[in-house]
Amino acid sequence: MGKAGLPVSPLAPARFPDLPVIAGIDFASAAAGVKYQGRADVTLIRIAPGSTLAGAFTRSSTRAACVLDNQAKLAQGGDAPEGAAILINSGNANAFTGARGQQSVDAVCAAVAGALELPQGRVFTSSTGVIGEPLPHDRIVGVVDDLARGLDAGGAAGAARAIMTTDTFPKGACAEAGGIRIAGIAKGSGMIAPDMATMLVYVFTDAAIPAALLQQALSAGMDGTFNAITVDSDTSTSDALILAATGRADAAPITDLDSPAGRDFVTALHGVMRDLAHQVVRDGEGATKFVEIAVTGAADDADAHRVAMAIANSPLVKTAIAGEDANWGRIVMAVGKSGAQADRDRLTIRFGDMVLARDGWRDPGYDEAAASAYMKNEDLRIGVDLGLGQGARTVWTCDLTHGYIDINADYRS
Amino acid sequence: MGKAGLPVSPLAPARFPDLPVIAGIDFASAAAGVKYQGRADVTLIRIAPGSTLAGAFTRSSTRAACVLDNQAKLAQGGDAPEGAAILINSGNANAFTGARGQQSVDAVCAAVAGALELPQGRVFTSSTGVIGEPLPHDRIVGVVDDLARGLDAGGAAGAARAIMTTDTFPKGACAEAGGIRIAGIAKGSGMIAPDMATMLVYVFTDAAIPAALLQQALSAGMDGTFNAITVDSDTSTSDALILAATGRADAAPITDLDSPAGRDFVTALHGVMRDLAHQVVRDGEGATKFVEIAVTGAADDADAHRVAMAIANSPLVKTAIAGEDANWGRIVMAVGKSGAQADRDRLTIRFGDMVLARDGWRDPGYDEAAASAYMKNEDLRIGVDLGLGQGARTVWTCDLTHGYIDINADYRS
Repeated sequence: MGKAGLPVSPLAPARFPDLPVIAGIDFASAAAGVKYQGRADVTLIRIAPGSTLAGAFTRSSTRAACVLDNQAKLAQGGDAPEGAAILINSGNANAFTGARGQQSVDAVCAAVAGALELPQGRVFTSSTGVIGEPLPHDRIVGVVDDLARGLDAGGAAGAARAIMTTDTFPKGACAEAGGIRIAGIAKGSGMIAPDMATMLVYVFTDAAIPAALLQQALSAGMDGTFNAITVDSDTSTSDALILAATGRADAAPITDLDSPAGRDFVTALHGVMRDLAHQVVRDGEGATKFVEIAVTGAADDADAHRVAMAIANSPLVKTAIAGEDANWGRIVMAVGKSGAQADRDRLTIRFGDMVLARDGWRDPGYDEAAASAYMKNEDLRIGVDLGLGQGARTVWTCDLTHGYIDINADYRS
Repeated sequence: MGKAGLPVSPLAPARFPDLPVIAGIDFASAAAGVKYQGRADVTLIRIAPGSTLAGAFTRSSTRAACVLDNQAKLAQGGDAPEGAAILINSGNANAFTGARGQQSVDAVCAAVAGALELPQGRVFTSSTGVIGEPLPHDRIVGVVDDLARGLDAGGAAGAARAIMTTDTFPKGACAEAGGIRIAGIAKGSGMIAPDMATMLVYVFTDAAIPAALLQQALSAGMDGTFNAITVDSDTSTSDALILAATGRADAAPITDLDSPAGRDFVTALHGVMRDLAHQVVRDGEGATKFVEIAVTGAADDADAHRVAMAIANSPLVKTAIAGEDANWGRIVMAVGKSGAQADRDRLTIRFGDMVLARDGWRDPGYDEAAASAYMKNEDLRIGVDLGLGQGARTVWTCDLTHGYIDINADYRS
């Protein structure tokens, strides 16, 4: 069972990966009773002196206090000569909490800065949970000293569990490239928003890399990973990704992303990001199918993204997938409503390797029985070629089931 | 029970209204077995010589053949000196059917033109049902002579039933203004698309009014009525509204929409359109709540529309309403993701007359018990003031329930 008492997603990986220790990164988790009882709900991550930092955050105009605080601090630069820390709580989002929200952030950051002897400007926070309730920050401050004493390089798996809310499994991924290690943890049941379903991601590497290049490597990976997933089209007030590089690897510093070592690092980093993003979709609330939607032949990449997201967010497409119904007419509908340039008579639609529709009409070789059989798979691939240009984009989503309604129609009370 | 065997929506009006006869308009319905068996599925509407016509259609880029045909014919002008006709079938959308789609439209229009002695360019068609299947137009052509013989000025209620697909109740509305009568029928379970849930609307009046003014009166009403409703954010390939004015009323012709008679007519027309639009939402698939979302204080009307639709289409807002959960945090989330200009600290949120949040924070007088009690109502009103400018827009939607999943996860097969 997941933390919220939900059965583990049928799409969950077989097991949590063996994350490598990243030299210079330590984790600790504790139970502060922010909202949940009897489970760890606060995590502290210490990042060694000399590390560099990068981040990516929600574009919501109603961003939570901690997100605004993180953004302001990273805007001062990504270097951490004296080290840095991240403190994460689940159970309360500290969002839409007015001026009190920032006061809570300041109180938590001051406590962590004191305990770890860090400048307060290098202490970052994330909060995930209910919106609009004041954060009981005293409970968090009360466990900071315990957390500081418990810091451990092997604590990543415990941290991945402590940050869960409606997640049904902890999420981790790792990679190695040219002697450099990368390890990340995430929580989230989609882009799906607020209350208890924010997406939080923390990725660490022992690479030595300047902060500006680290941010560039991170930003270049967002469109193909976390910005290419959706569970229900709702965007959290609190989504955050923080990436830290400790420079402790036995490998030369990366000074150019286009060098062989730079390219290997970027590829490995984006692989970890994609893996975590897919795990978030695989834990989409109520999900029973993992769906890749690959759009090609669009006028440009932006149009391809528009079409892919229109399909991925369509309740009618998602319910058809839930019902294992090869209802490609709903794909046609979603293309039509997307706002992207499209020509009905150039459209090709594939499920897996099967061509269902071509040139604005059902393919002559269309086989309803084969299409229906394909829909029984747990992992599905929908291909749409618009026949217009070179624009392409792939996104990932899940189906829309009774489980989603169960989880969201009433869990706040 | 509705036509598809679904229980009638709890939000349905008590009864179908007594629609007045509109002089010059006759209706007939028949069972052609296009897809359904044992029920009327084809409707013919005859519009008298000398009438004027106007229309509004889906903006989908994968529009059905009949929609493209109607648009081409209306582009030639809205006068019908020799009369006009509309033929509607349910059970098959004739959408994404390539060149064959237009051939089917032509075959049906030729049969109707022959039976009623009309120019083919004044015969309009609508098809609603499964996408991508060839329309068995011979079955429709086979009942055209029977339909022509059965035309009857009192047949509107029968027509409203014959055009139903997943609808659970027939939809009609009427008004009178200065001796002019207006009557309309509609089908649809939302903007919800394709297969069997297209929205079709037919409105008739005995007003004498030039085609250009009729189109202007219609277009002016769309933003506040049919473009202000949503069930699930999906847009049909086939949505169509046709308005005909027969000029048979005992009232002076309307030559100026800004005259007292013109204003009365426009107000009455928009009232009928709004009534029908609301009935479509009240029959939203699986709906148990009718929700008005009124956004004020936006930077402009376009931003107000963006915020209102972001709330109305949010699966998390809609499931919270289904669960009667006063989860106003999800409203904050939807405002944040809308893309409209918003300032967290100026936001006010009301449920009915209750202020829940003000100035970026829960209202000091917030009463959880009262908010929860309000959510038990069948008709709800959510008010959002952005505190920025004069932009305002009101839209209507329904909740997202298990019924929606039941209806859409598998009804094609």
